[in-house]
Amino acid sequence: MPKHAQIQRLGKDAEVPAALYGARASRLAKLRALGLPVPLAYAVSVPTVQGIAAGHIPDLAQLLAHFGERGILSVRSSPVEREWGGPETLLNIGLNDNIHANLRHRLGDEAANALYCRFVQDYSIHVARLDGEAFDGLSDEACGRAESLQAALAIYESEMDERFPQDPVVQLGHVLRSMARAWEGTTARILRQARGAPSDAGLGLIVQRMAIGLGAGESGAGLVQFVKPSTGETAVRGRYLPKGQGRDAMLAGRVASYITSDKRGVSLEDVNPGALADLRKYGEIARMGCHDALRFEFTIESGKVWLLDAAPAARSPRAAVQIAVDLAGDGAISRKSALLRVEPRNLQQLLHPQIDPEAPADVFAKGLAASPGAASGRIVFSATAAQASAAREEPSILVRHETTPEDIRGMHSANGVLTERGGMTSHAAVIARGLGLPCVVGASGIRLNFRNKTLTTADGKVFSEGDVITVDGTNGVAMIGEVGMVRPDLDGAFATLMDWAHEFCDIDIRANADTPSDARMARVFGATGIGLCRTEHMFFQEDRLTVMREMIFADEVADRRAALDRLLPMQRSDFTELFEIMQGMPVCIRLFDPPLHEFLPHSREAMQELAEAMDLPVSQVIARAEDLAEFNPMLGMRGVRLGIVMPEIYEMQARAIFEATVKGSQSGEPVVPEIMIPLVSASREVELVKARLDAVASEVQIETGVKFTYRLGAMVETPRAALRAGELAANSAFLSFGTNDLTQMTYGLSRDDAGRFMSAYVNLEVFPEDPFHTLDVDGVGELLLLASERGRAANPDVVLSVCGEHGGDPASIGFCRDAGFDYVSCSPFRVPIAYLAAAQSAVEGTNKKTEDLVVT
Amino acid sequence: MPKHAQIQRLGKDAEVPAALYGARASRLAKLRALGLPVPLAYAVSVPTVQGIAAGHIPDLAQLLAHFGERGILSVRSSPVEREWGGPETLLNIGLNDNIHANLRHRLGDEAANALYCRFVQDYSIHVARLDGEAFDGLSDEACGRAESLQAALAIYESEMDERFPQDPVVQLGHVLRSMARAWEGTTARILRQARGAPSDAGLGLIVQRMAIGLGAGESGAGLVQFVKPSTGETAVRGRYLPKGQGRDAMLAGRVASYITSDKRGVSLEDVNPGALADLRKYGEIARMGCHDALRFEFTIESGKVWLLDAAPAARSPRAAVQIAVDLAGDGAISRKSALLRVEPRNLQQLLHPQIDPEAPADVFAKGLAASPGAASGRIVFSATAAQASAAREEPSILVRHETTPEDIRGMHSANGVLTERGGMTSHAAVIARGLGLPCVVGASGIRLNFRNKTLTTADGKVFSEGDVITVDGTNGVAMIGEVGMVRPDLDGAFATLMDWAHEFCDIDIRANADTPSDARMARVFGATGIGLCRTEHMFFQEDRLTVMREMIFADEVADRRAALDRLLPMQRSDFTELFEIMQGMPVCIRLFDPPLHEFLPHSREAMQELAEAMDLPVSQVIARAEDLAEFNPMLGMRGVRLGIVMPEIYEMQARAIFEATVKGSQSGEPVVPEIMIPLVSASREVELVKARLDAVASEVQIETGVKFTYRLGAMVETPRAALRAGELAANSAFLSFGTNDLTQMTYGLSRDDAGRFMSAYVNLEVFPEDPFHTLDVDGVGELLLLASERGRAANPDVVLSVCGEHGGDPASIGFCRDAGFDYVSCSPFRVPIAYLAAAQSAVEGTNKKTEDLVVT
Repeated sequence: MPKHAQIQRLGKDAEVPAALYGARASRLAKLRALGLPVPLAYAVSVPTVQGIAAGHIPDLAQLLAHFGERGILSVRSSPVEREWGGPETLLNIGLNDNIHANLRHRLGDEAANALYCRFVQDYSIHVARLDGEAFDGLSDEACGRAESLQAALAIYESEMDERFPQDPVVQLGHVLRSMARAWEGTTARILRQARGAPSDAGLGLIVQRMAIGLGAGESGAGLVQFVKPSTGETAVRGRYLPKGQGRDAMLAGRVASYITSDKRGVSLEDVNPGALADLRKYGEIARMGCHDALRFEFTIESGKVWLLDAAPAARSPRAAVQIAVDLAGDGAISRKSALLRVEPRNLQQLLHPQIDPEAPADVFAKGLAASPGAASGRIVFSATAAQASAAREEPSILVRHETTPEDIRGMHSANGVLTERGGMTSHAAVIARGLGLPCVVGASGIRLNFRNKTLTTADGKVFSEGDVITVDGTNGVAMIGEVGMVRPDLDGAFATLMDWAHEFCDIDIRANADTPSDARMARVFGATGIGLCRTEHMFFQEDRLTVMREMIFADEVADRRAALDRLLPMQRSDFTELFEIMQGMPVCIRLFDPPLHEFLPHSREAMQELAEAMDLPVSQVIARAEDLAEFNPMLGMRGVRLGIVMPEIYEMQARAIFEATVKGSQSGEPVVPEIMIPLVSASREVELVKARLDAVASEVQIETGVKFTYRLGAMVETPRAALRAGELAANSAFLSFGTNDLTQMTYGLSRDDAGRFMSAYVNLEVFPEDPFHTLDVDGVGELLLLASERGRAANPDVVLSVCGEHGGDPASIGFCRDAGFDYVSCSPFRVPIAYLAAAQSAVEGTNKKTEDLVVT
Repeated sequence: MPKHAQIQRLGKDAEVPAALYGARASRLAKLRALGLPVPLAYAVSVPTVQGIAAGHIPDLAQLLAHFGERGILSVRSSPVEREWGGPETLLNIGLNDNIHANLRHRLGDEAANALYCRFVQDYSIHVARLDGEAFDGLSDEACGRAESLQAALAIYESEMDERFPQDPVVQLGHVLRSMARAWEGTTARILRQARGAPSDAGLGLIVQRMAIGLGAGESGAGLVQFVKPSTGETAVRGRYLPKGQGRDAMLAGRVASYITSDKRGVSLEDVNPGALADLRKYGEIARMGCHDALRFEFTIESGKVWLLDAAPAARSPRAAVQIAVDLAGDGAISRKSALLRVEPRNLQQLLHPQIDPEAPADVFAKGLAASPGAASGRIVFSATAAQASAAREEPSILVRHETTPEDIRGMHSANGVLTERGGMTSHAAVIARGLGLPCVVGASGIRLNFRNKTLTTADGKVFSEGDVITVDGTNGVAMIGEVGMVRPDLDGAFATLMDWAHEFCDIDIRANADTPSDARMARVFGATGIGLCRTEHMFFQEDRLTVMREMIFADEVADRRAALDRLLPMQRSDFTELFEIMQGMPVCIRLFDPPLHEFLPHSREAMQELAEAMDLPVSQVIARAEDLAEFNPMLGMRGVRLGIVMPEIYEMQARAIFEATVKGSQSGEPVVPEIMIPLVSASREVELVKARLDAVASEVQIETGVKFTYRLGAMVETPRAALRAGELAANSAFLSFGTNDLTQMTYGLSRDDAGRFMSAYVNLEVFPEDPFHTLDVDGVGELLLLASERGRAANPDVVLSVCGEHGGDPASIGFCRDAGFDYVSCSPFRVPIAYLAAAQSAVEGTNKKTEDLVVT
């Protein structure tokens, strides 16, 4: 504790920094400095409050003297950052028998009794820590009666074995100490840490003269803001309670008035238009002076408006964008500040339809909010049914235990996904986020019966295939029937903010796009190219899957080649279309990656079907499936390993890419495809693939007579590839970091299996965050830095990028930008988020030197 | 090519370094210097041979002049290292019509014809590259006839359209060039690279006067050595062919004589005891002078012994030990040299019974030699049957598709293992090597029928359970019935060599030991403690498995604790016994590591049984198994993750360890158990486990009134743990590197699934070696160095070690020793190998500074 208590009067020339006195005190000081009618107030600094908690009470008599003899006071918490919360405001401090008598004259018996009675209760419960039940009979209405006041005083006296304290100095001292200690309690600590507060988070306190909204004349209290919370458009919103105090207007059961004239009932505008005009005026002054739209807590004392407290106006993510853009438009803040005002992650909610918060909804299942947005449609229990539904142009919701790669075709066709199992990083969740498809996973209360095609809810409701439901992937719930929605609005303020983000963003943002529709979406969101085109999804389409399986069942290279020859024209047309859509922009194609067994059916029935389709004994299908099965598919025969052991697959893909390149180059500027090799762990892998690809390129050039070039790169997905990045870069035009796999391998942690303990791990602070959501700077991050350093040293021109989930995570994007990466690539729906995050990182100027980031 | 050809006469004062003239030339020079009767010879240097291959033939007339007019010559290859092979020796160079006529006088017609005829053939085929078939009619016997000689000359003349060259200079020039070029051929190159030769491996050549074993008087040729190839004991071994040349005595179909008197037939000792005495005398001189037991190629020319060539005597791994120890005993070499003479890897063969090479054997299946040694026993098809067989004290061979952790009990009981699938790093292979159990995996020709309990061989033989077979894990074959074996001999020379290895070895060698019998074996082999005690194997015993499964099925913590309480006394007695056996030595116990699903049955039948045993509906058993199933078990809920989410498991284990510690400390010096935490990826994991373990330790100390200490360490098995080793070391007494898992994760490569492409990868040189056998210095090795540096910086006292397969690999042991690790730990049967490898590393003085090893 400092030698002298820091207690600062809020006002014109006062220095009231938030770091020392808390955000609320700082803001109120500003309002007073702007000349707004904030009642006299003093701020107690964070160190002084710490001292108070330890028992060092400053000289309060001196403080009270400032407020005059008959003033009654409130004490509010003022944490350094508003989000951390804090103990509740205590009102009416200073009330005692004398002042009560005085108030009876000024306000009348009922109001005076109510104030004193209420203070005695609040003080007893929050300061003296008496049991609240003792006061159960004393409702707010009852409090106006003299007997109630006497009862309250009597309860205090009997419980505490002393008279209710009459000395305002004593009262204030106990109140301050009580609030200071409450801040240090375990529960408060846990709660604020959950909101991101550090362990030494500081609390300031504000002692303020009260304006009393209970007296004669037009008196009351309310809350008001001047923007719509849902959209951020200019409009007055709030509630007002005549003869009310503090936040009473917001309490349930209170019939509050409207602020502006409203046909549904009485309003402040009706009864006191001058007060509303004052509030509007104060609102605009505060908005420009404090550089933000504020919400006021106000009291009208005999017709005069007092502003007791102010906070940033409540706002949805969409409103946040509107408010920031408007502030910048009005010159209240700069464009840079406007960019920093919006949480990139929250943009997600702007990009998808959302459930209308006003619409009635009947929730039948809760799960994890795996992919934002909402969709209604008919229940389908299989990928095939989803496709059939799409063919009939009927929206569908795919319902599965959990999804597998076989379901991807179905996910492309469905409008939403609901699974019984899986976590935030399950297959369904990851793919749905990639597709921008609303998705709820882990709805463990439901039971699915695929034979009868029914979904049974926890309370026994049964749905059949074809019944309409709605999934809300923003909130993780599923609802009966169709539910009202709010459409996304990508013009207006959103478009303006995005323009500014593009302006300040100093790295490239590409999109992960596997299909023409992904690619078109990528262009809509302003991606500068495709950073990851996964080719294997292309093989899950019905007609191709059959050929794919023929390839897998081929015993001889020749048979395998024959099957691949049939896939070639399909792949070529995939690429041709992608090149057309992305004209003039780079397209980075990842060669085939997954293990072959992902293309085989898993159930006995499906194997039977396949055996029939391929005219093979089912035993052979089962044998092949067993043959290909792996203990740890993530660490098995996939990626470049498959490409080296069965080189004909990559050869076919290379030919398809190069033939599409020739075709694409004929119409306009030459296409320069980027090809990347997955799951590299040794530089010789790149050499071997490069030799084969070069040979195919030469063949195609000779056959077509058209010259072209291509850029080959390696994916850095294994820790070893990161360590050997120097060697890899020597043979590569670019290195693309697949941070999903790299995280899995660096931690030894399967994304699919981590759900079982990830939440326990984050709760116990074993991991500060789920490393699949936010890049693990200490471990995976070090590998990234080390690899980029070695890569650049060996080949200064090597292009470095990150693709995968982290490419859309704001914190991770900042890290990549600071580390000097050339671009990040993320799913199309995350491109705006990436732009904003990168722009923020650029604006904040955190372009630290790479060396500073190396953690050793 | 150097300006002047380097051609050096072999003899007393000549400098003939192996690096310049090849190993053979160098050795022959030494023998001549020792005064042994080696015919006059000249060595052609490696650069000169390279020049010859390029067409620069040196002045051969000058060279030939040294040999006199009528000498006929041989040319032998002399690669820099003997193991690299080289073109075959060419004899009788210089023979032409003139010398033939002369020889007819000296040796008689038949011998002279035979020599000339043979030379014409050899020259035609190996030098002029004529088709060997042309000479098909001319057998060695036929060659003695004049017509045969004329026929051979005529074939040459008609094929080459020129007379057979008569000028010895021409002949020798062509021979030298032919041999020099053969060395550079693709096949020769691949063959020698397979034997470890570098790409620029050099060849020297030796031109030598021939001694002719075909003439009148006692003449002939043979091979002799003075140690038994199988054991290395002193004994004369060899063959002799009267009237023979070169290595004729070794050719199939030739009835050679014995060297020493033999009742089976005629011998050199019988016909020429003086020659044998000379050979013995020369053998001893050469052994002392060349510091090794040699094998001579000799010719007796009219009674006089000539030594044409010498090489290290043929020797089995066991003989190599005997020979090295004897040489050191006789002062021919130092003890240090003796240690370097034995390949550590080869010691394996000394430690297990081996198939007697002389015993008749009927092979029915071939696979991979997964774990050395041989065993005979009755076929069993299940772990249970193996245990039953062990109970009846009947040796058994466990035959499976592939083994799973459920089979471990069975493997402990069986005497050998044969699997149809899997590679060198499959479960069966790894566990068998750990257990020192002969094992053949991937015997893909056999078919198993577990319903009928039959094994059908590729050619249709059917075996039933109970039939006796023999597996030879050294050679990777399975044989019908019982086959004769040679027992290991761990006394004598082996024990002496081991004493010397212990003397020079400057790091500790511990053993991985899970059971009392492992621990006893560890002591037998001189381990200085247990470096890895895997506790989970203890739970696979029948009675414990049931309790274990009860724990897995427990829904509540209380039920789980109840099951664990029943496991506690069993675990305690495990540890008590281990501490007793290892008295005074450190025992490092790894806390529970595998995923829980490893303890559940996999087949429908076994689940049914379990449901009955536990009185649960089978649906519940299946549901739990599905619930626990993982996509990538290697990367899932195991190790410390399980320990943190279900802390009662580690608490039970800690209590068992501490109670055993108290018990063990009562009888003698205090036990200080080492406890290690598996699969760490964040330092907070160590902190959380440490807090729990400390609490349990306090409880046990209070309950028993006995004070004790323990040492806690983290396993570094994930790349992230390696990167964060500084933090880990701050909380740890030791860091133990689990290089198996670390390799898996660094490469993104599952040991169980790698078999499918590992051989292709090693053949294509993508990986220089299987990284699960020999530590990957460039990737995993860098993580080891980086972690040890960071760990030591944070905690200079931290003990560093490697446990797992690499702990028994000689190259990896050298790396760890050079990197300054404190100990390596390997399976008991590899402890001698580890000692020898570490001793070699110490003797060779390769104690490089850590910094030199960092690969960047």
